[in-house]
Amino acid sequence: MLFRPHFKTHQLLEVGRWFREAGIEAITVSSASMALKFAADGWSDITIAFPANIREAGLFNRLAATIRLNLLLDSPVTAAALGRLMKHPTGIFIEIDCGQERSGLSYADKAGIDETLAVIRNSPLLSFRGFLTHAGQTYAAGSREEIIRIHRQTSARLQQLKERYRAGFPEMHISIGDTPSCSILPLVEGADEIRPGNFVYYDLMQHYLGSCSLDDIAVAVACPVCGIYPQRNEVLIYGGAVHLSREYLNRDGVFYGLPVLLRDDGWAEPLSGSRLVSLSQEHGLIRTSPGQAAGIRHGGLIGILPVHACLSAALLQDEYMIMR
Amino acid sequence: MLFRPHFKTHQLLEVGRWFREAGIEAITVSSASMALKFAADGWSDITIAFPANIREAGLFNRLAATIRLNLLLDSPVTAAALGRLMKHPTGIFIEIDCGQERSGLSYADKAGIDETLAVIRNSPLLSFRGFLTHAGQTYAAGSREEIIRIHRQTSARLQQLKERYRAGFPEMHISIGDTPSCSILPLVEGADEIRPGNFVYYDLMQHYLGSCSLDDIAVAVACPVCGIYPQRNEVLIYGGAVHLSREYLNRDGVFYGLPVLLRDDGWAEPLSGSRLVSLSQEHGLIRTSPGQAAGIRHGGLIGILPVHACLSAALLQDEYMIMR
Repeated sequence: MLFRPHFKTHQLLEVGRWFREAGIEAITVSSASMALKFAADGWSDITIAFPANIREAGLFNRLAATIRLNLLLDSPVTAAALGRLMKHPTGIFIEIDCGQERSGLSYADKAGIDETLAVIRNSPLLSFRGFLTHAGQTYAAGSREEIIRIHRQTSARLQQLKERYRAGFPEMHISIGDTPSCSILPLVEGADEIRPGNFVYYDLMQHYLGSCSLDDIAVAVACPVCGIYPQRNEVLIYGGAVHLSREYLNRDGVFYGLPVLLRDDGWAEPLSGSRLVSLSQEHGLIRTSPGQAAGIRHGGLIGILPVHACLSAALLQDEYMIMR
Repeated sequence: MLFRPHFKTHQLLEVGRWFREAGIEAITVSSASMALKFAADGWSDITIAFPANIREAGLFNRLAATIRLNLLLDSPVTAAALGRLMKHPTGIFIEIDCGQERSGLSYADKAGIDETLAVIRNSPLLSFRGFLTHAGQTYAAGSREEIIRIHRQTSARLQQLKERYRAGFPEMHISIGDTPSCSILPLVEGADEIRPGNFVYYDLMQHYLGSCSLDDIAVAVACPVCGIYPQRNEVLIYGGAVHLSREYLNRDGVFYGLPVLLRDDGWAEPLSGSRLVSLSQEHGLIRTSPGQAAGIRHGGLIGILPVHACLSAALLQDEYMIMR
């Protein structure tokens, strides 16, 4: 099985190089500009896992001229457009919607899949690589068992497609991608390729889904302490929606992250009873357990474990300090 | 009354220059780096309206050496730190919490205010400029009447402080700042200075609060159409949480923006019955009224009126097209 990690989470050349040192040669990204950035750093096998934005055909051609490029599409219209616009050999995955209802042709839409495949087959520069899905419905799962059930359903739906089209495309791959399935299943079933991304850092959402332990979370946002309010057990940090996004969890109340004390070599356990309970553009308000605010200093730094690492990392990619 | 617009919403030198052409000389920003950017473009009277992050004293000194700089603080500890760290004359506003409970000394905490003022008075380079508040609780108001009631309460609380300290500081200003109050009250009452920011673009949140009409909204995010799903009346755009933030409204269901058809000179009314109903990192899903999806083209652009313009504008500040 091919491991083609999704680099949209970190978007950092340096982190990408760690994967290369570990032997990874093929990657996933989510936009043409991200593909160009990593291609310039020597990556030569890249899938852009977003239904192709045909306005970017010029960028796709720059990429396809020099690397092994795979694009996604989910309609005969886009297939025809790419057939017309691409000037270099390009791999094509058909994105399949296995139940999330975000993007992709429905797994049940055999006529749509037939028609799309026919257009690809008639386009000399396009090569069908296989069926790809993102089973993002696992993010709404309430338990590990439900994640496993969703994954098995997804896998069965893709296997049916593979059976149906295998004769015409013996090299076809089934590619799946969500971090919960890839983290929870000891051996991901029924896939030729996996594309998880978030696992590189994990985050609180993944923790509460059962994908990782709190200790596995590898990113924290360092926020300066700008206000201390012992009367209301609250601490103001410079750290708001433009740094952490407004992604939240609701577990006995809404929160946007968990505070940790930073150390020279990382951070400690989350502060017991403390949560980031309010966010505006740049203000973040931590509610602490009684008395805890008094132990925090103006001008100190507090780390925030994010709810959704992909968003914080995308928002702050120019402001990393790497602790290895 | 002084109009000191908050530039955190647009953060653009070009938009700032429009204000200068209109005679504005004093501005508000939310960080030292934003102040440096506008100071380099000729702005010489800047308030950084965020409780001072004393880790940035070096940047504050670079600013105070050349411009008229005002900082905010809400504790004697920060006052003492700035008294020690600042090497140039610096104006100081004490931030007052009039009920929002985000940042600021409580309007009722006379002992805290006395103590903070005493530290400022004993710091030769710090000059007390007045009391400043952001009555952000207006954002939770259910009606124009409630916004007016909150504003009058805020104003009365600040006027009481002005009365109490006026003798010692006859030049003191009362500065208020939320866009709903500044938009709805024909003449903002009881303030010497107003600092609204969002009004430069407005957005859906302000519209539903009653601050503006839909026609007043002056920013839309142009998103490429990457998928069309007529069976489920949905359209996929390249436009997600990293472009629009995850700020949402809930009015007969949650949504993250309203789609508009773009024209060469701007955009049309929101598409009747359409809403941006789902957002992930870069995927946005528009639910349309029946049949509407069929009229939208792959590779076209759809505009999204954002729920919270400040966040979209901050996230996309390098990607503007200005239509004047």
